Amino acid sequence: MQIKKSITVVKIGGNIIDDATELKQFLTDFSKIEGLKVLVHGGGKSATKMAQSIGLIPQMIDGRRITDAAMLEVVVMIYAGQINKDIVAQLQANDTNAMGFSGADGNLITSDKRNHPTIDYGFVGDVKKVNTPLLATLLNNGIVPVFCAITHDKNGQLLNTNADTIASELAIALSTMYEVTLKYCFEKPGVLFDSEDDTSVIELMNAELYTKLKSEKAIHSGMIPKLDNCFNSLSKGVQKIKIGHHSMLNHNDAICTTIAL
Amino acid sequence: MQIKKSITVVKIGGNIIDDATELKQFLTDFSKIEGLKVLVHGGGKSATKMAQSIGLIPQMIDGRRITDAAMLEVVVMIYAGQINKDIVAQLQANDTNAMGFSGADGNLITSDKRNHPTIDYGFVGDVKKVNTPLLATLLNNGIVPVFCAITHDKNGQLLNTNADTIASELAIALSTMYEVTLKYCFEKPGVLFDSEDDTSVIELMNAELYTKLKSEKAIHSGMIPKLDNCFNSLSKGVQKIKIGHHSMLNHNDAICTTIAL
Repeated sequence: MQIKKSITVVKIGGNIIDDATELKQFLTDFSKIEGLKVLVHGGGKSATKMAQSIGLIPQMIDGRRITDAAMLEVVVMIYAGQINKDIVAQLQANDTNAMGFSGADGNLITSDKRNHPTIDYGFVGDVKKVNTPLLATLLNNGIVPVFCAITHDKNGQLLNTNADTIASELAIALSTMYEVTLKYCFEKPGVLFDSEDDTSVIELMNAELYTKLKSEKAIHSGMIPKLDNCFNSLSKGVQKIKIGHHSMLNHNDAICTTIAL
Repeated sequence: MQIKKSITVVKIGGNIIDDATELKQFLTDFSKIEGLKVLVHGGGKSATKMAQSIGLIPQMIDGRRITDAAMLEVVVMIYAGQINKDIVAQLQANDTNAMGFSGADGNLITSDKRNHPTIDYGFVGDVKKVNTPLLATLLNNGIVPVFCAITHDKNGQLLNTNADTIASELAIALSTMYEVTLKYCFEKPGVLFDSEDDTSVIELMNAELYTKLKSEKAIHSGMIPKLDNCFNSLSKGVQKIKIGHHSMLNHNDAICTTIAL
């Protein structure tokens, strides 16, 4: 049996992107990860700021933002343009051969426009397929792919897509060819027992504990989709998942949450 | 001697980008070009419109736009984000495996920040180096590179760069490995003897005629940098250059201007 190469898929959230100093530090840490790697970045606050400054009024239904045509233009320009190219240029300065992508580039990630029975989310996509062979070709040529949270439907329509989901779908797709570690980096040191107490990191979250904590409503609601994604990824072949501050990227003994089945 | 493969490098100007119907037609025509190909696109008016709508005042010196930090953010988001991803998504819908790039992506094009003795152009770059081996790897894997007019200095700084120059520098770099045809597409059928008369196309512009017309001030001033670029490219190995309307892309007998040494 051939031993699979290892790859690290890292996702960073908006709070890191919004803080130039943190972002620079993160990108330095990311550059030091050995071996094959992929970065997925969220959006941060600049899309909302830009939307406001050009007079768009955010469309919300049941507390969820609707991506209408005007908002899609804004997220494409901010995520795929400003943020993605800034990250790529900084990584290049660190001698990491980054290449920035939306899902449309190289047809790397196709999505279906979300079709909800009662809510029209607008131009929002749910990931359908990752172009794993092309991604592997890029990785084997020394490229470090950097994905923003924009995909396409292959019919000319770009779609706003959840960055956590993109990270987990990329990790699942790559797990057919590589041994994948998926790392979600955010401003906290991990999943917390008490969201007010940064020292209360749950160091090992397995399915049993997760079910128990969910039933006790002891998991912060914002963490539930992220953790659901994690368990889904593990069940589909991803080897290892960690959630925590980006200081964990190069320190295997750093405190963080490890997710296990 | 090994026969070089052929490649077509196409540049489209802003007037095509600003007209959705023309752009769609152009992209259909571009998709039909056989063999290896590269697209370079300019910016169009949307960067200026966006700058105005967020209250930026264009900085001009001697009639030239200065790219200050705020304007650079705008051109990056519009050129590398909105326009580039829209073009890539449309090409994907035409089954052309497009991948959108700034020069920072894959370190494909590095530039030097322009250093002028009297004018500070701001964040404007003059092309220094094309990463030809990586570009060839992408082309050999069926990728159609789509470049916007943004490059980087490899030290983390993105730079606004002339799209005509990017096209000619890519063509020159590729001519070491391929037989390159460079096609500049714009709204006119070619270089005109009389800029008011679209039927006055100069079908063959050679160096002798160019020198003569320039000395007679019979060349429209806007065409001079473009033509200088062309003769420079030809002298550095580019095989063939054509300037004209994009209807020439798939019709070898279409009227256009052929540039020759």
